[in-house]
Amino acid sequence: MSSTATPARIAIVMGSKSDWATMSFAAEILDSLQVSYHVEVVSAHRTPDKLFSFAGQAADNGHQVIIAGAGGAAHLPGMLAAKTLVPVLGVPVQSAALSGVDSLYSIVQMPRGIPVGTLAIGKAGAANAALLAAQILALHDAPLSQRLADWRQRQSDEVLENPDPRAQA
Amino acid sequence: MSSTATPARIAIVMGSKSDWATMSFAAEILDSLQVSYHVEVVSAHRTPDKLFSFAGQAADNGHQVIIAGAGGAAHLPGMLAAKTLVPVLGVPVQSAALSGVDSLYSIVQMPRGIPVGTLAIGKAGAANAALLAAQILALHDAPLSQRLADWRQRQSDEVLENPDPRAQA
Amino acid sequence: MSSTATPARIAIVMGSKSDWATMSFAAEILDSLQVSYHVEVVSAHRTPDKLFSFAGQAADNGHQVIIAGAGGAAHLPGMLAAKTLVPVLGVPVQSAALSGVDSLYSIVQMPRGIPVGTLAIGKAGAANAALLAAQILALHDAPLSQRLADWRQRQSDEVLENPDPRAQA
Amino acid sequence: MSSTATPARIAIVMGSKSDWATMSFAAEILDSLQVSYHVEVVSAHRTPDKLFSFAGQAADNGHQVIIAGAGGAAHLPGMLAAKTLVPVLGVPVQSAALSGVDSLYSIVQMPRGIPVGTLAIGKAGAANAALLAAQILALHDAPLSQRLADWRQRQSDEVLENPDPRAQA
Amino acid sequence: MSSTATPARIAIVMGSKSDWATMSFAAEILDSLQVSYHVEVVSAHRTPDKLFSFAGQAADNGHQVIIAGAGGAAHLPGMLAAKTLVPVLGVPVQSAALSGVDSLYSIVQMPRGIPVGTLAIGKAGAANAALLAAQILALHDAPLSQRLADWRQRQSDEVLENPDPRAQA
Amino acid sequence: MSSTATPARIAIVMGSKSDWATMSFAAEILDSLQVSYHVEVVSAHRTPDKLFSFAGQAADNGHQVIIAGAGGAAHLPGMLAAKTLVPVLGVPVQSAALSGVDSLYSIVQMPRGIPVGTLAIGKAGAANAALLAAQILALHDAPLSQRLADWRQRQSDEVLENPDPRAQA
Amino acid sequence: MSSTATPARIAIVMGSKSDWATMSFAAEILDSLQVSYHVEVVSAHRTPDKLFSFAGQAADNGHQVIIAGAGGAAHLPGMLAAKTLVPVLGVPVQSAALSGVDSLYSIVQMPRGIPVGTLAIGKAGAANAALLAAQILALHDAPLSQRLADWRQRQSDEVLENPDPRAQA
Amino acid sequence: MSSTATPARIAIVMGSKSDWATMSFAAEILDSLQVSYHVEVVSAHRTPDKLFSFAGQAADNGHQVIIAGAGGAAHLPGMLAAKTLVPVLGVPVQSAALSGVDSLYSIVQMPRGIPVGTLAIGKAGAANAALLAAQILALHDAPLSQRLADWRQRQSDEVLENPDPRAQA
Repeated sequence: MSSTATPARIAIVMGSKSDWATMSFAAEILDSLQVSYHVEVVSAHRTPDKLFSFAGQAADNGHQVIIAGAGGAAHLPGMLAAKTLVPVLGVPVQSAALSGVDSLYSIVQMPRGIPVGTLAIGKAGAANAALLAAQILALHDAPLSQRLADWRQRQSDEVLENPDPRAQA
Repeated sequence: MSSTATPARIAIVMGSKSDWATMSFAAEILDSLQVSYHVEVVSAHRTPDKLFSFAGQAADNGHQVIIAGAGGAAHLPGMLAAKTLVPVLGVPVQSAALSGVDSLYSIVQMPRGIPVGTLAIGKAGAANAALLAAQILALHDAPLSQRLADWRQRQSDEVLENPDPRAQA
Repeated sequence: MSSTATPARIAIVMGSKSDWATMSFAAEILDSLQVSYHVEVVSAHRTPDKLFSFAGQAADNGHQVIIAGAGGAAHLPGMLAAKTLVPVLGVPVQSAALSGVDSLYSIVQMPRGIPVGTLAIGKAGAANAALLAAQILALHDAPLSQRLADWRQRQSDEVLENPDPRAQA
Repeated sequence: MSSTATPARIAIVMGSKSDWATMSFAAEILDSLQVSYHVEVVSAHRTPDKLFSFAGQAADNGHQVIIAGAGGAAHLPGMLAAKTLVPVLGVPVQSAALSGVDSLYSIVQMPRGIPVGTLAIGKAGAANAALLAAQILALHDAPLSQRLADWRQRQSDEVLENPDPRAQA
Repeated sequence: MSSTATPARIAIVMGSKSDWATMSFAAEILDSLQVSYHVEVVSAHRTPDKLFSFAGQAADNGHQVIIAGAGGAAHLPGMLAAKTLVPVLGVPVQSAALSGVDSLYSIVQMPRGIPVGTLAIGKAGAANAALLAAQILALHDAPLSQRLADWRQRQSDEVLENPDPRAQA
Repeated sequence: MSSTATPARIAIVMGSKSDWATMSFAAEILDSLQVSYHVEVVSAHRTPDKLFSFAGQAADNGHQVIIAGAGGAAHLPGMLAAKTLVPVLGVPVQSAALSGVDSLYSIVQMPRGIPVGTLAIGKAGAANAALLAAQILALHDAPLSQRLADWRQRQSDEVLENPDPRAQA
Repeated sequence: MSSTATPARIAIVMGSKSDWATMSFAAEILDSLQVSYHVEVVSAHRTPDKLFSFAGQAADNGHQVIIAGAGGAAHLPGMLAAKTLVPVLGVPVQSAALSGVDSLYSIVQMPRGIPVGTLAIGKAGAANAALLAAQILALHDAPLSQRLADWRQRQSDEVLENPDPRAQA
Repeated sequence: MSSTATPARIAIVMGSKSDWATMSFAAEILDSLQVSYHVEVVSAHRTPDKLFSFAGQAADNGHQVIIAGAGGAAHLPGMLAAKTLVPVLGVPVQSAALSGVDSLYSIVQMPRGIPVGTLAIGKAGAANAALLAAQILALHDAPLSQRLADWRQRQSDEVLENPDPRAQA
């Protein structure tokens, strides 16, 4: 399921197939930044053993950051973090009844000892997890750092060049 | 750590030693109902492997109900439930910043497929987890059923015999 | 209203007819696990006497677990629990204004002495109430225990066999 | 437990003895307005039968308004209302973990058909339940209406005569 | 705007015309109970003087209960209550952003001294305000008391006669 | 982007182009009150330098009030306020997952030292920001003060002339 | 109650004497900026007529900004705003049960037409209301504008001169 | 203010001196992992220019991760992130009225484009920010990776060696 033949630097995992509607925004960012990634459904509750083996092999598989998205009682990011030293970024997926507040609290309120870097609820959070993962990789990857700087510049320029919200797109 | 030599019918586990201030209210109820139990600290995040082995052996160890208390991003009850068919009852421990709302959401909002029967936040929830566990055992244990009925009667009598809240105790 | 001629092992009750849209997910699970159940509308507020008689006869009627769904100021599960020693599992139905937070608090925050094992808000909670009820029955029903294990295995396999969220169903 | 020999016009009931710390503020108001009242602990969960008999006899006992205070999954006011046509006023008692939000939702979010007039969380709510009960009685009790008007006037005067918050009491 | 030539026993007021979609459920109940009522838009913020004169004349106009619905920073019920001894019942109208939690808090959290009996958010609350108002009137109106008892009986019968939620209506 | 050739007395800024759907309600009010204004997209996060230069030049550009709308982690109003002594009014834009509660808290909970006058979430808040800005200008602009008084009178008259919510518009 | 013989430019009003513990932080700021102010308890619920007359005379009394603090169902700021064109700034006072969330919603969620510029809950909000009021006055008072600029500079310097949080004060 | 003569790999910044009571738990972790860090108070609102220059020079100063703690309308982490490509981790400091929910929302709900990896509210979050920062550095620092693994092992061992919560420490 890797998007490239070489080891994927980022792993994007999610608790269920339906989370892809959110997590695809992470993949889109990594594509535009030319960062390799792996995508896989890993359910903390339905496939706990796979969760453990995935986390246990993450470093050996060359993943440098794990992006994990889940909703409701979202245990995936925290349990992955408990089983690896690879940095884990969590994306709270918007839930049906509680709009993702349950997902957010389940991911961000980790006890002392096992950190999960948590992003915003939903699509913006997925995109930002990818950007933060890229910033982490860019600490030792100058070309990626440049692509990130360019990405940010384009983002700023888009706003600067369209200052009037009343104008037609 | 079992309170009796025979297999403990109930397991009371918790994410950290400090949760005992809450979970001891479960033990107190089981003591008064003469139900054997085992007490152990099992941290989902700090000892994930132990969590898996504990859950995997719960049935073989003779546990018929697992009572699990945890606070914050409380993953212990749900992850235990993912690894065993023994019924799991979850107790949200009151947390520092969010008063246990985070614990409650992390425990109760489990996705379809893996249930956790969740009780109230804090001490009342711990006591009630023990009572519910005893009610489950009592389905096939007539003497326990009688002790439960007696316990309830005493509880009612206490209210009925002291109807005036202004009276001295 | 029982789904079988023999005594129904599980009772599924709900506060109003409209709750069936949620509670039918409990029935669906019990059907697939071949567990007999009874379905009935029992309103705590509109038919309080029926609630009391239902709870009072639950054990004699052979119900081993009661699954009760209600929304808003959801008093049904707690009042049933006050009138029987049969284990009661509560399902907070999603409400119009408060998305089921009112239902959840009204069901889960029971005082010490009368427990209700509470599941997630909405359909997932209804399905999980059925699964937890089945796990309770399975403590003394080996064939059901096997069917539950099979159900879980199929659930895991479905995830394991479809690891790529981008694939067509 | 009535405070007068004649039938008590108001009943003040509460779920547990500890609620008296809140509900005594209702009694204090009724004392100052010279309205007779009855005080009793009636627990929805620990003494459900008493709750039903209390509600069933409320009209015959001469109670014209029932003030019911409870905390957590507060079912007392709503269940009383389900069993009588005497107006029920509910007081959410401040709870340990959720500060009374659970009590408030459990009391105020009653479904169509069975009303509970709900007051503020805690002491202010208890006092106001008494005032509202008195206003209801005053519809057909001119002297009480005058005492209420006087009470309000004194309340206003106290503010009007002490306009400077920096002054010593 | 009164629905009858004789003085209206109940006043139904609301902060804006759009609140009628909610408050009409109060009128519907009063119609079915044959209780006279008056309907009027009175905005606390846009027509504060009218609010004061309306409240000041409520008793003289023969209103025995005021039902006030408002949304957001809902000041109408509390300000009416500050200007009259006629009992005021408040209905929190569901708001756009906060689903009526703002309306609820603004109405129910009145300080000691000025009570508003608050009902549920939205349509159920409007219907219940009418029922509670009728229960208050019925304290001195035996025929209305009988109509209320009949209304409740019909409500119970409807549930009792349709116990199976799976049946077609 | 100014709507007039003369210096705009009010600046309406917003974090993204999509906020115009909300903030246009501020412009509409200013149009009807004949107050000049400037409209511009200034993103705290995507164009931080522009935010600083905009705030730094606001006074020199003749802006007497800045109205700033933003959603989610809404930093725009507070950061503008940190860089100018021109009064800043904040409008929390309704957000996808949290309905604007995040926007509200991010804007209103400013620490001691840097104030932002915050209005309601969404369109009503945008309109009210414009009205409050006009009231501030009107302190030294008698004709505007008269137009504001007229605006309010029309608003009151509309309610007064349509007291029956059941009437056709 | 004015702090100066000349007309007070700012009015600081509050719903009850106990709010002074919060609102005194507004007075302290105005003292340090040498802005005259008037302090008075005006209760929306206990002294509604005084509230109306106070608001009605505010402009004539020379008040250019009204700072109003209140807690719970906080109607004071919004009702003042309904009766005057003088800008009203609202301070949500921290409440017992709901920590000021009720106060905040009751003040900030004003409907379109009557604005209240709302500050943070509690002491920081009171101080900031004073600062914002001063910024409004400073639009036409150059010496005050300078004092405000100096105040801000001192505030910045304090931080800049003490960059190490570990140092002793 | 650096704790070492060589460039500090981590910067710990906070909005006010009082945040040190929380953020010191990050420093403590970094000390035990022998990771160099710099500590400084940088206020988004009181020293916005310093915030910009700090962020602008962070990379040149050798900081590889910035840990930023702030409370209330916590703009520090997000604004730092807007001005640098160095990864920013945010710690919501527990606030007086809203217990840090305001801090959490202000930090985590960043819009698409500028990420902040957010940790739990309060001390646990500060400690975990340090651990996550160390995990990021450890991607290219094998000895640190080993120290982290040892730290985790000790943490696990502590739990494993003290399984009975009833034992004396």
